Amino acid sequence: MTAASDARWLAAAARLALKGRPASNPNPAVGCIIVKDGRVVGRGWTQAGGRPHAEAMALDMAGEAARGADVYATLEPCAHRSPRGPSCADRLVEAGVARLIAGVVDPDDRTAGLGLERLRKAGIDAQAIACPHSAASLAGYLTRQRHGRPHVTLKLAMSLDGCIALADGTSQWITGEASRAHVHSRRALADAILVGGGTWRTDNPRLDVRLPGLDRRSPERWVLTTQAIEGVQTIAAPADITRIPAQYLYVEGGAQTAASFLAEDLVDRLEIYRAPILIGDGLRAIGGLGLAELARAHDRWQPVERRSLGPDSFEAFERSRQGD
Amino acid sequence: MTAASDARWLAAAARLALKGRPASNPNPAVGCIIVKDGRVVGRGWTQAGGRPHAEAMALDMAGEAARGADVYATLEPCAHRSPRGPSCADRLVEAGVARLIAGVVDPDDRTAGLGLERLRKAGIDAQAIACPHSAASLAGYLTRQRHGRPHVTLKLAMSLDGCIALADGTSQWITGEASRAHVHSRRALADAILVGGGTWRTDNPRLDVRLPGLDRRSPERWVLTTQAIEGVQTIAAPADITRIPAQYLYVEGGAQTAASFLAEDLVDRLEIYRAPILIGDGLRAIGGLGLAELARAHDRWQPVERRSLGPDSFEAFERSRQGD
Ligand SMILES: NC(=O)c1ccc[n+]([C@@H]2O[C@H](COP(=O)([O-])OP(=O)(O)OC[C@H]3O[C@@H](n4cnc5c(N)ncnc54)[C@H](OP(=O)(O)O)[C@@H]3O)[C@@H](O)[C@H]2O)c1
Ligand SMILES: NC(=O)c1ccc[n+]([C@@H]2O[C@H](COP(=O)([O-])OP(=O)(O)OC[C@H]3O[C@@H](n4cnc5c(N)ncnc54)[C@H](OP(=O)(O)O)[C@@H]3O)[C@@H](O)[C@H]2O)c1
Repeated sequence: MTAASDARWLAAAARLALKGRPASNPNPAVGCIIVKDGRVVGRGWTQAGGRPHAEAMALDMAGEAARGADVYATLEPCAHRSPRGPSCADRLVEAGVARLIAGVVDPDDRTAGLGLERLRKAGIDAQAIACPHSAASLAGYLTRQRHGRPHVTLKLAMSLDGCIALADGTSQWITGEASRAHVHSRRALADAILVGGGTWRTDNPRLDVRLPGLDRRSPERWVLTTQAIEGVQTIAAPADITRIPAQYLYVEGGAQTAASFLAEDLVDRLEIYRAPILIGDGLRAIGGLGLAELARAHDRWQPVERRSLGPDSFEAFERSRQGD
Repeated sequence: MTAASDARWLAAAARLALKGRPASNPNPAVGCIIVKDGRVVGRGWTQAGGRPHAEAMALDMAGEAARGADVYATLEPCAHRSPRGPSCADRLVEAGVARLIAGVVDPDDRTAGLGLERLRKAGIDAQAIACPHSAASLAGYLTRQRHGRPHVTLKLAMSLDGCIALADGTSQWITGEASRAHVHSRRALADAILVGGGTWRTDNPRLDVRLPGLDRRSPERWVLTTQAIEGVQTIAAPADITRIPAQYLYVEGGAQTAASFLAEDLVDRLEIYRAPILIGDGLRAIGGLGLAELARAHDRWQPVERRSLGPDSFEAFERSRQGD
């Protein structure tokens, strides 16, 4: 129950929360761990469609052991009753837990501190400590709350010199098998996936998840286009992503689409697969961004992950935004 | 004296050899370690201008302790007497060493196995075992022997999307301070440095080594150009690098020059500094390569090194060539 052990339990709850992604949509994917005498007595994460909530699942597992226990939740417990059941705050009070530590205060107007307040009024030691792992695991939910749009990951598979295709449009294959399997595992974490009209026409991509056991996870497909296209949902401008009912949108290019999203600062995470090949005068990864000064390009992207995938490399960068 | 310990001593000799680079030019930068009863009794590397040889320096240090010792040399000892002194093979015989293990057989016609033969005839257990570290440390010498030209490293500093400058040519600065200091340390390992006429005119680069203690190491400067330029040596085509009296040539761009060298398959090592920025429609890292099929681009470049340099990344790749 030191600050360090609180932070560790919250980080563990954030890992658990990932199990709820993306099926929890439209609810946030929350993780919850109940600890008594240093041992885990309950674990839960948001179930498909958003219910049961993580706290409810963890309390069900803990049963009587929840009495007097410490509860770690990545998000402040909800305080609003719904037709689908009692609020988590009420259930925690009823279970008689001793402490509640939340990683993020819920920005939802219906909770926004009320969950913690309800617990405190019932004599529970309830507090929020800023947990970056919790915030990261709730990125989709927090982006929707703050910006009214899904969290956007832009994926690009390119050569060492930044080409995503030969000049004639051939892009199969730049990266190797390990990279392609990794892309499928990333798709499985998204609610929706989008490509530009050009890629839709050139590659006729399936955009599904072809991994054993995950094929049911294929996200909704969307196309950015000014035209009417049959059999797929479309938006006419990047800003229209507000209409896509997703917490996590995975944008797979091509170059014009990448540039459109970047120019409007609508990319939160960049995932780059890079093959050890040189192409020369192929199709650039990104179209025009209208960049006038080099200084403006700096300090926007923070490297957050790097790994090898067979001969290729994978790198993720997150957009550093004031106030996030 | 197991195979594994022989390999380890040779690798250590290869690290020592680096001290001789690039000052040993035109001689190979060789490393030598003399071991007796498991302890190092002599160490040497090729001195500036090529003499004394590594073996001579190590024997001088070992003195009487060389008798009955094991000698590890990255390159087969020379067998030819020169006006500047006796051959290393003769000196090793005279010193009464017991064993000689070489990492690479000298391709020079004047030695080419004769060094090992001379030692064996004198009753020394002399053998060559293929040591990749030795070969790597002799890359410049071996490239000159095999292909009659310097070993070429192409350096490129670029954005995530493969741009080396804004569209208007501004390239100061894409990468950060740590990358730039690293470039200076790499320049210090080259005998000669080359840029294209465009970069010479646009950036007016000093191309020197600005690192404390290494400023005397600034390599000879060359420009690839069809024009006559004052105050610097020039070549009119990439294939003319045979004329550059260097073992290690460091090519710093720009895009056309990079493409010219790559198109003629004259690049042995690629060193990429990458800043976490996006530029969009800037100047591509590499001009046209005339690549018609993606399959042809694969399996040419082997990743050999990767590190972070502040916010940037550094990656090195080596050209996989049949028979090298
Ligand atoms: N290696 C990779 O990761 C990767 C990924 C994807 C694609 N690719 C390659 O990239 C190439 C296609 O790239 P591309 O740049 O030509 O096409 P693209 O970005 O896929 O599509 C361009 C089209 O997207 C729509 N669009 C873009 N910006 C828009 C905006 N701001 N508002 C409305 N619509 C917008 C327009 O569609 P309409 O014309 O329909 O109106 C436009 O013509 C293909 O060769 C493909 O193989 C590679
Ligand atoms: N970020 C980086 O790592 C980096 C490094 C270097 C340069 N840059 C940037 O790159 C830009 C310059 O690049 P660039 O592509 O325009 O120029 P470049 O490659 O530096 O120079 C092009 C010139 O090189 C000569 N040349 C090229 N290929 C040749 C061949 N096969 N035979 C004979 N001569 C040949 C010609 O010189 P002549 O016209 O004189 O005949 C040609 O005009 C500048 O903006 C510079 O800042 C960036």
